[in-house]
Amino acid sequence: MNRRKFFRNGSLFTLGATLLNPLEGSAHVVDLNTLHKNKKAKNIIFMVSDGMSTGTLNMADLYLNRKTGKGSNWLQLYKDQRISHALMDTASASSIVTDSSAGSSSWGGGVRVKNGVLNVGPNGEKYMPIWQKFKKAGKMAGCVTTVPITHATPAGFCVTNDSRNAQEDIAQDYLNLGFDIMMGGGDKYFNAELRKDKADMYAAYKAKGWQVVKTKQQMLAANNDKPVLGVFAEDGLPYSIDRKNDAALESTTPTLAEMAQKAIDRMKGHKNGFVLQIEGGKVDWGAHANDVGALLYDQVAFDEAIKVALDFAEKDKETLVIITTDHGNANPGVIYGKDANDNFDSIQKYTHTNEWILNEIKPDFTVAKVRELIEMANGKTIAEEDAKTILTYYDGLHKEDGGLYNYKKVPFKAFAQIQQKNNSVGWISMDHSADYVNLAMFGPGSELLKPFVKNTDLHYLMLQAAEVENKF
Amino acid sequence: MNRRKFFRNGSLFTLGATLLNPLEGSAHVVDLNTLHKNKKAKNIIFMVSDGMSTGTLNMADLYLNRKTGKGSNWLQLYKDQRISHALMDTASASSIVTDSSAGSSSWGGGVRVKNGVLNVGPNGEKYMPIWQKFKKAGKMAGCVTTVPITHATPAGFCVTNDSRNAQEDIAQDYLNLGFDIMMGGGDKYFNAELRKDKADMYAAYKAKGWQVVKTKQQMLAANNDKPVLGVFAEDGLPYSIDRKNDAALESTTPTLAEMAQKAIDRMKGHKNGFVLQIEGGKVDWGAHANDVGALLYDQVAFDEAIKVALDFAEKDKETLVIITTDHGNANPGVIYGKDANDNFDSIQKYTHTNEWILNEIKPDFTVAKVRELIEMANGKTIAEEDAKTILTYYDGLHKEDGGLYNYKKVPFKAFAQIQQKNNSVGWISMDHSADYVNLAMFGPGSELLKPFVKNTDLHYLMLQAAEVENKF
Repeated sequence: MNRRKFFRNGSLFTLGATLLNPLEGSAHVVDLNTLHKNKKAKNIIFMVSDGMSTGTLNMADLYLNRKTGKGSNWLQLYKDQRISHALMDTASASSIVTDSSAGSSSWGGGVRVKNGVLNVGPNGEKYMPIWQKFKKAGKMAGCVTTVPITHATPAGFCVTNDSRNAQEDIAQDYLNLGFDIMMGGGDKYFNAELRKDKADMYAAYKAKGWQVVKTKQQMLAANNDKPVLGVFAEDGLPYSIDRKNDAALESTTPTLAEMAQKAIDRMKGHKNGFVLQIEGGKVDWGAHANDVGALLYDQVAFDEAIKVALDFAEKDKETLVIITTDHGNANPGVIYGKDANDNFDSIQKYTHTNEWILNEIKPDFTVAKVRELIEMANGKTIAEEDAKTILTYYDGLHKEDGGLYNYKKVPFKAFAQIQQKNNSVGWISMDHSADYVNLAMFGPGSELLKPFVKNTDLHYLMLQAAEVENKF
Repeated sequence: MNRRKFFRNGSLFTLGATLLNPLEGSAHVVDLNTLHKNKKAKNIIFMVSDGMSTGTLNMADLYLNRKTGKGSNWLQLYKDQRISHALMDTASASSIVTDSSAGSSSWGGGVRVKNGVLNVGPNGEKYMPIWQKFKKAGKMAGCVTTVPITHATPAGFCVTNDSRNAQEDIAQDYLNLGFDIMMGGGDKYFNAELRKDKADMYAAYKAKGWQVVKTKQQMLAANNDKPVLGVFAEDGLPYSIDRKNDAALESTTPTLAEMAQKAIDRMKGHKNGFVLQIEGGKVDWGAHANDVGALLYDQVAFDEAIKVALDFAEKDKETLVIITTDHGNANPGVIYGKDANDNFDSIQKYTHTNEWILNEIKPDFTVAKVRELIEMANGKTIAEEDAKTILTYYDGLHKEDGGLYNYKKVPFKAFAQIQQKNNSVGWISMDHSADYVNLAMFGPGSELLKPFVKNTDLHYLMLQAAEVENKF
């Protein structure tokens, strides 16, 4: 089929093209022909580093460059001029600062919804999520993430629900909808002993022919001819840096790159192609905690998953890879000062997250013991005065309430402020920001990207790139 | 001349092309031919919003969009697909976090130097600044800024000096070097009564045939056939928002857009073309002060100057417009929360900067009077408790030392933290950040831009775009 004609006629893509290009009509017809002549995206890999401010992308690149002499895979694509790239406006229907459910719904349903909601409009209108559309078009579809697989970002591509919190229902929905591989954390939403309704979701998945895997070994051994449910943690998976420094975790828990590879292997043979979402979900959690070791090493883990996707897409030549984030979070950055380089480089010596450190500290710890623990985990300790400050949060009276996923109310904020003296990294808050974010695309369909887009535009771009009529 | 051949031969641009494209050799030859066939940049307008974090660009666009229904001129270029755009690594020789002199020197001299230095290497090597190169190539050259015209960013395109602080010397250098229009603040570096050496620079400029203008009216009346020195303030020009709400300032002090228009008018008739730097210098000062009204309204004023440059370049068709910043500063952003939209919109009601407010407060003010003043200037007041906190900084004992240009040591940081409750804007610090920054180019030469560049690359790109041999 002559793609030039196909788009010039506009018979199939009137809606998508109009929403994508309100100002320019068919202006990108020329690009299509010069760049990816007659190529359609048989497969789409959508990569989300959740809650990744520009500073997070930038610090991970700086970190890698200064440690290894080579920056991130993400920015290497820019350096090699192999991508289309853009800034993206991430707002939701209710706020200039989105949450992850509205963010994922903007891509998933093609419409901005209120924060907290999954593909449902203000009057209860349900917008069919994009992975359902691609399933109906005959493709395989799946998601892998480092947070619960029922969490907002995968859910926004798969289901409709009034509330992102309905994670038990979402675990059921995935089964009903018949996806092909779903992996991440979230045992508490599948396990009969932990679910409120005591339903055994694992049994239900197995009864429908799914393979259920709970360790890296089981995942690697799973057959690629049958659907796979992978659940590797009660809630989110461990942060990359904690995993790396814990032999037990390292041997049993897969990395995001390993999950991505498995998902590609599971679906790549399908004749009609596949769509896969890969989420670095704990980048967001690290930002909520102002936990720079958590944030940077998980961003690096996301970057390693980018390599898996690109290696596949380069050989395949029919895969569109989209790499982005749903919103900024905490806008971290390295702050000016004579020791900025050395301070920033000290993060290379970190062996544990702040989450790990602060959960290790017990009320009976002495100042010396706190300082020793931090030296062990950060390669450098903090002042006695600062260790005393940290201990005040363990007296049973004072608790810090900072950080969205701070279940145990440890003093994330206080510690990040103290740690800043040693690492020069600052944060604007412990929550999402309204910043426009970075977006890169590789492969067929990437020529459709304009330099500035709304999050909702990606919904139509994916359909258009894959030449799937939006008739659902 | 056939430009394709010109670059293929590579006889003139070996150095520049190699530095720009270490990986790809002459890969952009094709782009040159498809996009701007045989077009060279006769003129270059280089626009710097100093210290503009991604969040500043983004908030100005959001602010304008929500207030007027139309976003910034900068991002409209992206939406209309009329530019090349990139991320830029802004490091200096001494730090991953640059200052403005090393930042401007990277573009000006094509080499990274240490923070604080203007185009001088570690062993005293002097790198000829780019505006001198273009002068030698027969073009006119000038700079306009909202900070002293002798400040780091204009100086980095014009002079070499061991120290950016040598502003009295720099005032002399500009005269010796024979630029064509130099306008901004900095009377204290020109005025015999304020200079340490008591030299009357105004008299010296006049003696060499320059027109010296000190008000908007004088500027507009100046002859375009002779060089122009414009000095409109003792130090920096007033912030845009303060200027707008002070009839005297508004009538006597030009905006950045007005200075830009005058500079273009002064030089546009020159047969060999011109080069012009336009700096929104006080965007950086606003960030150093965590002063959101100062920051945003000056970013909007910069955006209005973009329009002046673009309007000229569109008609002219031989002008390369480069729009960027030298580094991030304070990484401001709108923070998640149920009132984020209303809070952010409250900035539309601001009539004065925090600098103005905090300098208005006197030690004998009551809590009620502080609250009244803030209500007048921000459209909404602060809690009694917070007003008391502000007053503690006026007791003669306590001074806050936050903010680089905080000459009177007013409590910028404390007030920004209090103000955040009403405007939802957060800051990582009161200083520069290592973030990669946004860069856009319009016009002939913009096709040379790669998606990720180092700041130094722009030096060679400008020479290449203008087809000026780098033989100096």
